[in-house]
Amino acid sequence: MARGLGGILKVFQRLRSVSHMKTVLNQPSATVSERTSIARSLAALQIPFLSKPRDLSLPNSSWGTDMMRLYEHYNSQCEEETADGKKQAGLWKRIPSYNRLLKFAIGGVYLSKLIQSKARLFTRNTKEPGAAFEYVLFENSQEKTCVGIFQNGHLLEGPPGHVHGGAIATMIDTVTGTHATLLSGPVMTANLNISYRSPIPLGSTVLLESRLDKKEGRKTLLSCKVTSPDGSKVHTETSALFLSISISHLLKGG
Amino acid sequence: MARGLGGILKVFQRLRSVSHMKTVLNQPSATVSERTSIARSLAALQIPFLSKPRDLSLPNSSWGTDMMRLYEHYNSQCEEETADGKKQAGLWKRIPSYNRLLKFAIGGVYLSKLIQSKARLFTRNTKEPGAAFEYVLFENSQEKTCVGIFQNGHLLEGPPGHVHGGAIATMIDTVTGTHATLLSGPVMTANLNISYRSPIPLGSTVLLESRLDKKEGRKTLLSCKVTSPDGSKVHTETSALFLSISISHLLKGG
Repeated sequence: MARGLGGILKVFQRLRSVSHMKTVLNQPSATVSERTSIARSLAALQIPFLSKPRDLSLPNSSWGTDMMRLYEHYNSQCEEETADGKKQAGLWKRIPSYNRLLKFAIGGVYLSKLIQSKARLFTRNTKEPGAAFEYVLFENSQEKTCVGIFQNGHLLEGPPGHVHGGAIATMIDTVTGTHATLLSGPVMTANLNISYRSPIPLGSTVLLESRLDKKEGRKTLLSCKVTSPDGSKVHTETSALFLSISISHLLKGG
Repeated sequence: MARGLGGILKVFQRLRSVSHMKTVLNQPSATVSERTSIARSLAALQIPFLSKPRDLSLPNSSWGTDMMRLYEHYNSQCEEETADGKKQAGLWKRIPSYNRLLKFAIGGVYLSKLIQSKARLFTRNTKEPGAAFEYVLFENSQEKTCVGIFQNGHLLEGPPGHVHGGAIATMIDTVTGTHATLLSGPVMTANLNISYRSPIPLGSTVLLESRLDKKEGRKTLLSCKVTSPDGSKVHTETSALFLSISISHLLKGG
């Protein structure tokens, strides 16, 4: 994808922030919430990576028909052709996903050692494709929505033949948490109010849609629905609240 | 543990219900909610098992100091000595836990084939001890409380070095769902309203305490706190609502 001058400037601005963040992280005095906030920012801002890790949000052989169809539906809208035949960014943007938020980002090598080298992102902790969560997220910044397409493997069982309520909450936290970070920068999950309407069959694919309800001071309020692939059956409805964490004092640190 | 006549009668009553449930389950017409409700009942009623599966709620070498201390605190109150030196059931009861709700219960062999043989309970889907959730639940039926002791392994990461919000929701769903079933029989999770107060460090042990707030018609309302082992630090606070599913019509089926 070609980058304009604005894009390049943005990357430089991001790198400048990252360098500041790294300095703060290297100080033993950095608090947990500072570290958490920096980590989420690095992931959401899509800082250029030092190495080429495996992007787990791309299709693999375990993806079924529903999963592939939904993926292609949104992926085909990530790039569009202008009148003069040039390609440009479309309405939607795919959000890459790795097996650890920080592992491959700048400063990640240091942080991995600092924290716990064996640690794996909860939603990406299984090696066997299709066994647990298979998923991809797309953001539409114009409409302030974010969708998640999740295929639920056999390791996510709660009631026999159905997905565990905690696994459903995990999908919701993933989509709303990512969406809130994209909208508001570094945030912390403050509240998830989840209403379970109908059970999700194990092995099926579901669509999660997060919408911005309100931004008010430090608060970002989102709604998130989990539905069947065609949206006809509602599985859960959620109100989510995220609180922004100021990073201005962190940037002074450099 | 010695059983009185009342205890034996109870087991027979349970077995009679189970035989009815099994008959219903064998009918292809049994609905998802019928199957779900039966599964939860079988698990919560602690039906005698046909074989000897591994009870995963017992200590293993991965359990740390906090986990062991809390386990012993509650486990020591599961049996008490009477004035004449006999042993009797204490205030607390440990709830056994397996890697699938139905796998080892009566009818489970059939059901496993019926549904998905590879399926595993979300909270027990990892073989490596200590890698994901290590936990044990105790119920105090007199005080209508249920506690869960959870040690959070390296595969549960969300923010670097901390437990994923979805993994926290999973622990809460596990404790409140089990507690509601013990209090009210077959139930479905209807709502979880989770307030996240402070992050949980990866690798640490937390204490979950579920209390009955109200039973009203089909509704069972519970509160659940997640705290540090000594209760001094509150990580989350939750209101949970469960809806009873009538099984009277199922029992007619036999």
